[in-house]
Amino acid sequence: MKILIAQGGGPTAVINQSLTGAVLEAKKHGLEVLGARHGIKGIVKEDFINLSDLADDKLNRIAETPASALGSTRDKPNDEYCTNILNIFKKHDIRGFFYIGGNDSSDTIRIVLDFAKQANYEMKGFHIPKTVDNDLMENDHTPGFPSAARFVSKAVMGIDRDNAALPGIHLCIIMGRHAGFLTAAAALGGAHRIYIPEHPFDLDEFAQEVKQTFTEQGRAVIGISEGVQDKDGNPIITHFVKEKEVDAHGNVQLSSLPLGDILTNFLKEKIGASRVRSDTFGYTQRSYPDPSPIDSQEARLVGQAAIQHFMKGERNSGSVTIIRTANEPYASTFGISDLENIAGKTRHMPAEFFDPGTKTITPEGIAHLKPLVGDLPIIEKF
Amino acid sequence: MKILIAQGGGPTAVINQSLTGAVLEAKKHGLEVLGARHGIKGIVKEDFINLSDLADDKLNRIAETPASALGSTRDKPNDEYCTNILNIFKKHDIRGFFYIGGNDSSDTIRIVLDFAKQANYEMKGFHIPKTVDNDLMENDHTPGFPSAARFVSKAVMGIDRDNAALPGIHLCIIMGRHAGFLTAAAALGGAHRIYIPEHPFDLDEFAQEVKQTFTEQGRAVIGISEGVQDKDGNPIITHFVKEKEVDAHGNVQLSSLPLGDILTNFLKEKIGASRVRSDTFGYTQRSYPDPSPIDSQEARLVGQAAIQHFMKGERNSGSVTIIRTANEPYASTFGISDLENIAGKTRHMPAEFFDPGTKTITPEGIAHLKPLVGDLPIIEKF
Repeated sequence: MKILIAQGGGPTAVINQSLTGAVLEAKKHGLEVLGARHGIKGIVKEDFINLSDLADDKLNRIAETPASALGSTRDKPNDEYCTNILNIFKKHDIRGFFYIGGNDSSDTIRIVLDFAKQANYEMKGFHIPKTVDNDLMENDHTPGFPSAARFVSKAVMGIDRDNAALPGIHLCIIMGRHAGFLTAAAALGGAHRIYIPEHPFDLDEFAQEVKQTFTEQGRAVIGISEGVQDKDGNPIITHFVKEKEVDAHGNVQLSSLPLGDILTNFLKEKIGASRVRSDTFGYTQRSYPDPSPIDSQEARLVGQAAIQHFMKGERNSGSVTIIRTANEPYASTFGISDLENIAGKTRHMPAEFFDPGTKTITPEGIAHLKPLVGDLPIIEKF
Repeated sequence: MKILIAQGGGPTAVINQSLTGAVLEAKKHGLEVLGARHGIKGIVKEDFINLSDLADDKLNRIAETPASALGSTRDKPNDEYCTNILNIFKKHDIRGFFYIGGNDSSDTIRIVLDFAKQANYEMKGFHIPKTVDNDLMENDHTPGFPSAARFVSKAVMGIDRDNAALPGIHLCIIMGRHAGFLTAAAALGGAHRIYIPEHPFDLDEFAQEVKQTFTEQGRAVIGISEGVQDKDGNPIITHFVKEKEVDAHGNVQLSSLPLGDILTNFLKEKIGASRVRSDTFGYTQRSYPDPSPIDSQEARLVGQAAIQHFMKGERNSGSVTIIRTANEPYASTFGISDLENIAGKTRHMPAEFFDPGTKTITPEGIAHLKPLVGDLPIIEKF
């Protein structure tokens, strides 16, 4: 039997673990596995690689390499696109569709399966989760997030020491359009305060809180989600920036907008701070080749689990989920959820992880994040 | 006998290795070691820590921690400042001054020793090199650079894979006001072209070259020094930006200016590229807690060597230098140079490391950089 696998959305440091996990499991069951280059774009172009022909050691080296080795896409299929996908599936007698991606990718599978059903074409589809934003419903966390959180923690750790050496205010702008999980990881690195999209961002309050930290500590390291928004739900950048870029899913592209520079200038004017610096972690946080060990392991296992669900035959579709079973020592298992529970929905950071009064991550939030990122360097001070 | 050690200028990931190397060696010789907080600023304030009282294991943990543990400063002493420093040295009977820093710090020692000589106060001063820019004369390279180069290589490695997954143009803005060494490390990570301060940056040529790479490769990853300048020696940002910040040494602060955003917009307009992204590596590149093994080792040894020169008594001042003795396997030794040879001077990247026709790093440049950064992750592709 022939199946197809593809990777969609923003790459992560461990997305190829999921690919390899799925392919190796499929090979075990004698499945023929086609890989589509650049997600659904490669399906309609019939741009395929026969992955089950590849040697295990090649696949294992691919697993260690960051960012979607098959290539990715931001395409969201419309009706014509889906008809084309289905025609290709029929032509190649593909009976299983595995898409590694975020909630948009889950939605894509759902739409394609709907079209197959209408066309009476028998096939199954499984979503393999990934996202550095960590915003998929039904999951304790999602593959890709722990490695990105590891980078954020380590980067802030270094910046915190740099800021202690040359005191001032340092703003770290961190990925996360709607969910503050990744920014929360800045707390593991020593950030004094955290600003997340889940909590309304008030410019005056922000200035006052940063000033208070600076007065008390003689310096301030601040983690800020790129997606921070005001009480009316408008991204903060809209208070300062006029032009913005919107992708095919209607997502505003924020990474390349200079939020860090905007807030730096704002603080200099508002509280008269002299040394204010900012770093936007940008694309490095999702692709840095130093994955969290737990993330590498879990990413491989969710790929494997998707194939096992396909073989088991208990359901025709679903999205693999991660369930944490213990914290010390950390342990997790894998579930399966309906595509509809994941598709187009956004999980937010639990309220109990964040203290909006102090803008800090609670001990509960820290305990949640700590095992995911893996060992961090030891920091010693005089 | 009592000596004083301090850290100046921009921190690095291994600057505390040099501190620990010096203190442990000084303890061996029975010297009493005072550490001044925040460089010369801590001297005039008498803000001291007795470092020789600390346990070796504490000092060894400090060594592993990134960024000047004693604190740093950008102060450049004027005559009054130097008189104050000297009065403090006399008051505490300090006979050795060890300053870990770049060419500005070397200059500071030189000035203070001149004042001591005029005052007939017998003392010695040694400069312990550090700089991520790698721009100190008389050195094969300087401590701090290999670790920063390691970060740049790994970050670009991830970004290159991310860019292959979602093709477009990706600009990486890398530290280096006057020297392109750190940007050259982007070549180890897979950057297609490199723009350095040593070679005139022409905006039209830049646009044409990036376009050519994009046409040939379907994508482009470009490394750009923050200090790129036009043929008349004006930083490129001066073509676009009006305000700039200047530090006490007259250095223009470029890190926080949005050069990446400027060039992104420029390329979109000039060559009609649709997906252009930029990352400014910022402060992470000098503080990320994943040092190069050779860098950690050499940084410790230059600290040790400075104390040995002090004890030997053959000279009253000097700057410790790194001399490469072999490339495969890599080996180095340590020399000593006059402060005047280092102070206020800037080393540029050797012409033979860079091909200005293709804007690539030559095989000779790659061979120079490779052993310094240490092992890099293996990248596998389909």
